[in-house]
Amino acid sequence: MLRVGINGFGTIGKRVADAVRAQPDMTVAGVAKRTPDYEAEIARDRGYSLFAAAETTPFTAAGIDVAGQVRQLVAASDVVVDATPAGVGERNRALYEELETPAIYQGGEDASVAPVSFNARANYDEAVGADAVRVVSCNTTGLSRVLAPLEERYGIEKVRATLVRRGGDPSQTGRGPINDTLPDPVSIPSHHAPDVKTVFPELSIDTMGMKVPATLMHTHAINLTLRATPTAEDVRDLLTAEGRLLVIPERLGIDGAGKLKEYTRDAGRPRGDVWENCIWAESLTVEPLSDGRADCYLFQAIHQEADVVPENVDAIRAIAGLADGPESVERTNEALGIGC
Amino acid sequence: MLRVGINGFGTIGKRVADAVRAQPDMTVAGVAKRTPDYEAEIARDRGYSLFAAAETTPFTAAGIDVAGQVRQLVAASDVVVDATPAGVGERNRALYEELETPAIYQGGEDASVAPVSFNARANYDEAVGADAVRVVSCNTTGLSRVLAPLEERYGIEKVRATLVRRGGDPSQTGRGPINDTLPDPVSIPSHHAPDVKTVFPELSIDTMGMKVPATLMHTHAINLTLRATPTAEDVRDLLTAEGRLLVIPERLGIDGAGKLKEYTRDAGRPRGDVWENCIWAESLTVEPLSDGRADCYLFQAIHQEADVVPENVDAIRAIAGLADGPESVERTNEALGIGC
Amino acid sequence: MLRVGINGFGTIGKRVADAVRAQPDMTVAGVAKRTPDYEAEIARDRGYSLFAAAETTPFTAAGIDVAGQVRQLVAASDVVVDATPAGVGERNRALYEELETPAIYQGGEDASVAPVSFNARANYDEAVGADAVRVVSCNTTGLSRVLAPLEERYGIEKVRATLVRRGGDPSQTGRGPINDTLPDPVSIPSHHAPDVKTVFPELSIDTMGMKVPATLMHTHAINLTLRATPTAEDVRDLLTAEGRLLVIPERLGIDGAGKLKEYTRDAGRPRGDVWENCIWAESLTVEPLSDGRADCYLFQAIHQEADVVPENVDAIRAIAGLADGPESVERTNEALGIGC
Amino acid sequence: MLRVGINGFGTIGKRVADAVRAQPDMTVAGVAKRTPDYEAEIARDRGYSLFAAAETTPFTAAGIDVAGQVRQLVAASDVVVDATPAGVGERNRALYEELETPAIYQGGEDASVAPVSFNARANYDEAVGADAVRVVSCNTTGLSRVLAPLEERYGIEKVRATLVRRGGDPSQTGRGPINDTLPDPVSIPSHHAPDVKTVFPELSIDTMGMKVPATLMHTHAINLTLRATPTAEDVRDLLTAEGRLLVIPERLGIDGAGKLKEYTRDAGRPRGDVWENCIWAESLTVEPLSDGRADCYLFQAIHQEADVVPENVDAIRAIAGLADGPESVERTNEALGIGC
Ligand SMILES: NC(=O)c1ccc[n+]([C@@H]2O[C@H](COP(=O)([O-])OP(=O)(O)OC[C@H]3O[C@@H](n4cnc5c(N)ncnc54)[C@H](O)[C@@H]3O)[C@@H](O)[C@H]2O)c1
Ligand SMILES: NC(=O)c1ccc[n+]([C@@H]2O[C@H](COP(=O)([O-])OP(=O)(O)OC[C@H]3O[C@@H](n4cnc5c(N)ncnc54)[C@H](O)[C@@H]3O)[C@@H](O)[C@H]2O)c1
Ligand SMILES: NC(=O)c1ccc[n+]([C@@H]2O[C@H](COP(=O)([O-])OP(=O)(O)OC[C@H]3O[C@@H](n4cnc5c(N)ncnc54)[C@H](O)[C@@H]3O)[C@@H](O)[C@H]2O)c1
Ligand SMILES: NC(=O)c1ccc[n+]([C@@H]2O[C@H](COP(=O)([O-])OP(=O)(O)OC[C@H]3O[C@@H](n4cnc5c(N)ncnc54)[C@H](O)[C@@H]3O)[C@@H](O)[C@H]2O)c1
Repeated sequence: MLRVGINGFGTIGKRVADAVRAQPDMTVAGVAKRTPDYEAEIARDRGYSLFAAAETTPFTAAGIDVAGQVRQLVAASDVVVDATPAGVGERNRALYEELETPAIYQGGEDASVAPVSFNARANYDEAVGADAVRVVSCNTTGLSRVLAPLEERYGIEKVRATLVRRGGDPSQTGRGPINDTLPDPVSIPSHHAPDVKTVFPELSIDTMGMKVPATLMHTHAINLTLRATPTAEDVRDLLTAEGRLLVIPERLGIDGAGKLKEYTRDAGRPRGDVWENCIWAESLTVEPLSDGRADCYLFQAIHQEADVVPENVDAIRAIAGLADGPESVERTNEALGIGC
Repeated sequence: MLRVGINGFGTIGKRVADAVRAQPDMTVAGVAKRTPDYEAEIARDRGYSLFAAAETTPFTAAGIDVAGQVRQLVAASDVVVDATPAGVGERNRALYEELETPAIYQGGEDASVAPVSFNARANYDEAVGADAVRVVSCNTTGLSRVLAPLEERYGIEKVRATLVRRGGDPSQTGRGPINDTLPDPVSIPSHHAPDVKTVFPELSIDTMGMKVPATLMHTHAINLTLRATPTAEDVRDLLTAEGRLLVIPERLGIDGAGKLKEYTRDAGRPRGDVWENCIWAESLTVEPLSDGRADCYLFQAIHQEADVVPENVDAIRAIAGLADGPESVERTNEALGIGC
Repeated sequence: MLRVGINGFGTIGKRVADAVRAQPDMTVAGVAKRTPDYEAEIARDRGYSLFAAAETTPFTAAGIDVAGQVRQLVAASDVVVDATPAGVGERNRALYEELETPAIYQGGEDASVAPVSFNARANYDEAVGADAVRVVSCNTTGLSRVLAPLEERYGIEKVRATLVRRGGDPSQTGRGPINDTLPDPVSIPSHHAPDVKTVFPELSIDTMGMKVPATLMHTHAINLTLRATPTAEDVRDLLTAEGRLLVIPERLGIDGAGKLKEYTRDAGRPRGDVWENCIWAESLTVEPLSDGRADCYLFQAIHQEADVVPENVDAIRAIAGLADGPESVERTNEALGIGC
Repeated sequence: MLRVGINGFGTIGKRVADAVRAQPDMTVAGVAKRTPDYEAEIARDRGYSLFAAAETTPFTAAGIDVAGQVRQLVAASDVVVDATPAGVGERNRALYEELETPAIYQGGEDASVAPVSFNARANYDEAVGADAVRVVSCNTTGLSRVLAPLEERYGIEKVRATLVRRGGDPSQTGRGPINDTLPDPVSIPSHHAPDVKTVFPELSIDTMGMKVPATLMHTHAINLTLRATPTAEDVRDLLTAEGRLLVIPERLGIDGAGKLKEYTRDAGRPRGDVWENCIWAESLTVEPLSDGRADCYLFQAIHQEADVVPENVDAIRAIAGLADGPESVERTNEALGIGC
């Protein structure tokens, strides 16, 4: 059993911990946190060994036992997943390197934090045996999953995507905007296009970013100029066959993220998490262009809190050499209940 | 095993169905719906017999088998829970009466729909053996639970409550406001005060209603003039002892409904439901007045989709004479995991 | 002086009335309304003759004098602007035709309501002397203004635009969503692309529509494949020269619709109206493609309540033959203070 | 002509500047700012002498002339209005004292910043001839205006008010919450009650604060226990007679802040500002209690950006000894168009 330590037990970290625990071939060595808030309570209820990311005094003052300092957790782990806030991972790097513990970073870090930027569907093999891997951001993960099969099957001449992002997660009450639609960033392409290129170096892609007063999911309006002219049905079949894409049939009457997450909560998923990209079937459109090319369009919703979670699990297997890509993805999907 | 039919499988109905199934002494006879949308999918996945509330054709067209018409469901049930939209219950009443099936209605109906308006903590006994019972609305339920112990222990001279209500449930994308705070209704008292009086006929209470652009929970700012002068600690202890009140300690760092529901989702509750009133411990304040009286204040959050669910289960037991109040409440709490 | 009657005195109608009054060559014959609410108060304060669109009794009951029925207003007008809710204009058409009063309709009507769909910058001449004209919607107007100069100067191979629309106007408290991002419509292209083609029949354009919880402005993320490769500076200069486009310099620190409207309110514009498309200078980007073509990108914000107002004024001049296009546009801009 | 310098040209400062300029007995000596953004543009367009609150280089780099440093502005002013962000006023105090320029501070400062906390209706005389005055916050101003006449006429036994505050101003895109209702502060009374007591030292008042995802106005749900039992009509007449209270008749169909601000924008007010408290006539309710006392209820909306503006003008007159209270208020109201 591979021992996995998780540094940072917030939105991403707590989900990765639960996902690791659900796997047959790995176990949670412990989790590290800074503050004894409701998430510390959850760590305790779940029975995770809790380590102090900084001071232990706040925890003991709150009557919460800690198993030690984060350094001890890293030392006791075969792999560490860093799920601290954006930029903190880079600062933690020296510790992981000093203790020679292979590390998985999140998409809030700069690509330079690790030699490989990772998406299980697109470039699993590059991460096998690496010292460190960065799982790309929620948006880049969402884009990579849909681009990979289309690139392989038809070839992509160019991607133009508008990413309408949620202003903050449901629990981030300090984030706005309250009543505005912000070009964010104003400049084009947004940082997402270069980030996608860390996974698909040859791809021609431009992205436009926006931020809106919603908390549940990001929504992508995507145009792809394909080097072939499939029917919309062909594209639908191709995408439906992908394990981490959910093609939502019109019949379900799901008009946005509210009903989508209602559906997954109703279905009994932990935290109502949507690990898959959700693509509206009705939106899949293909329009022939000259020279056998075609413009393909689609809308997809991305649950920012959840889509990178299975990718972290796969990154752990890749870095530890536990399985090859298809095997790992299948094991992860099965253990979490992805795709059903 | 008591056979319970559920007419209307939306926000309330689907939760009541799952709650009934979780009880040791009752079973779901079936559920009735109008449209073959994602909630029909959920009914099927759960294995509930699905009946058509109106036409069967939309279901068969969508490839969903139905077990029959709602009339057959009512006939096959010992008790029917009507969870159709506000006002529709009244129209369904003739059917339940014709088939002599005792019925539970929801708070969207006028109080005149049934001889008893019900809250398990406050007036369980009145519903025992009744032909029909109305479970009061989410807001009235939330108020009743906190008023009952305070009235019993200290006596309440007057209640003045401001109810800041969510504009719509998370899946109701057609409801607003988007960027406004609406006195709703503008007139005072709002309809909530008379509704509370259907449960506490002698109580002096005024309520002011508002509507805001939020979807997760209602928030109540409550003032109670008590006929005694307890300490804030006394009140806290009294309320903490109540099974359906959660007193939230400051240490957890929960500042609103976002983090509150994050916590219950993290804790693994179905749909992240919060069946209990959530009272901020830090808000509990007592200020002495003349003549031994005192003003008591508190903030509480009410999960509108969930708080009436255990009350429906208790109403079923009361109407069917399965248990007395304390017994029923304990059985319901235990089966659902309320209060832990 | 051309006498202009305005039927419907809501968001659009009240602005058109004020804009007509500000022109040197036309006058407001009167305005028609249905209800004696705050907008009736405004009509009275402005000194507009108020006609009843339906019953007069509600007005007299509220102590507001009416000058007569809408039929009388139409009879007394040289041109009527119909600014009633979407779909009502079509129903009013028989009246205008019977009284032989040329009519201007709004974008909420189907294109078939009038022989010409109008944008002053793009096809003024087509409306000259027509019996009826439809001013295209706020979104189509915003697209037309930016497309016209780019098509003329460089030629446009294809437009791909994502229209992130406000859920409702600031006073429409009944409209949502509260916390969601909705593909709207889910199908692609949205109705906006065909609407643009009523103005540019030859243009290749696809649009994707979305709806978000914001009230101030629509925001467009636009990609244009040009048949030439200008620099971003060239495009900026071209668009800056257009009277109804405002290119917002980065230095002003305007990050969205909130600050944009704050700026125009500060500047003393009536109602803070933004009649022009607002294009973020920093967003203007050109990326060379093969064959001398280039992809051009930009973000623009459209004040849905205001941008069609000057277009209505120009449509009046066109239909009445008062001036040619450039003359009318200049007169309108000068009278309203557009572009400064 | 009294020379008034304004330090800080943001939401409050720019409005105070325009209001000062509109008075017959004072003039704007200049305004000070830190950054050359759109508000600097507005200062220039208005023809205000612009001083640098900190460095001048950003302004010259942006091609905006500055007249000097803030120290020069203060030296050239008979009175300075400090409208810098909360807490900065305290830091500026040494400068004003050194140059012996009487200063007006805003409600974001601690009450200790000045010997007098000011509301024109309640305690004008206390500020006459003072060295420094703090105009109380938007919420305290709104409460003071409605409390003063009720206290004078009937006597107030106790006030219990719930203040449902906007999360941020329309241009503050970084502020939340997006989808939550926050008790803020969680503890009771909120800081508003003590702040009201800086104006009414003897008053018994408790306040509960909340924050919601809206930007336009604060909304207060107020209960007052009066020492008399007027009719609702009496209270309405009393409040209607107050110059800075607008009692909104039901007939206008105004359901919240959106329509309220639409109305004032339509009416042509600068920035659509609502300087008055807006009280819903329909909400005014009186309920008899024992001993001749009565509970009075009302809803009011407060335009946080505007209501303190006339108070600043009056504070200037008080501190400079230009007029007595009633005279100043009348002059201010007349110059701004308040109450019509
Ligand atoms: N939230 C999302 O939507 C999302 C999606 C994809 C990727 N990410 C990325 O995942 C990473 C984590 O984001 P998150 O949203 O989970 O953050 P979070 O704020 O929810 O959680 C961060 C956790 O790290 C802990 N922490 C804070 N400072 C620390 C420090 N100095 N050392 C150790 N632990 C510390 C906190 O106590 C908390 O448990 C970031 O890189 C982020 O960009 C976030
Ligand atoms: N949603 C809440 O927050 C909430 C809280 C407490 C009480 N209530 C009350 O519960 C009741 C149900 O509300 P809800 O929010 O669950 O509604 P909902 O709209 O979510 O669900 C209603 C269900 O009834 C079905 N239905 C619609 N018309 C029907 C008809 N004519 N006959 C039979 N079924 C029909 C729908 O298909 C749907 O399954 C109402 O009285 C409401 O006031 C709602
Ligand atoms: N609001 C926008 O953002 C916007 C933008 C561009 C175009 N439009 C279009 O402009 C038109 C008007 O929209 P609006 O937003 O001004 O609507 P609105 O609801 O604000 O105003 C409509 C007016 O028409 C009156 N009215 C209602 N029914 C009527 C009837 N049967 N006969 C006569 N008058 C009636 C109402 O009293 C009101 O004065 C629609 O076609 C709409 O699609 C609206
Ligand atoms: N915005 C409101 O709703 C509101 C209502 C009532 C009272 N107030 C109070 O008014 C005061 C000003 O608030 P605001 O909303 O106008 O703020 P703001 O941020 O809109 O404006 C502040 C201004 O001060 C300038 N500034 C910033 N730092 C400065 C410094 N160190 N020295 C000099 N100038 C500096 C900024 O450039 C800006 O022009 C605060 O005390 C606030 O609490 C605000």
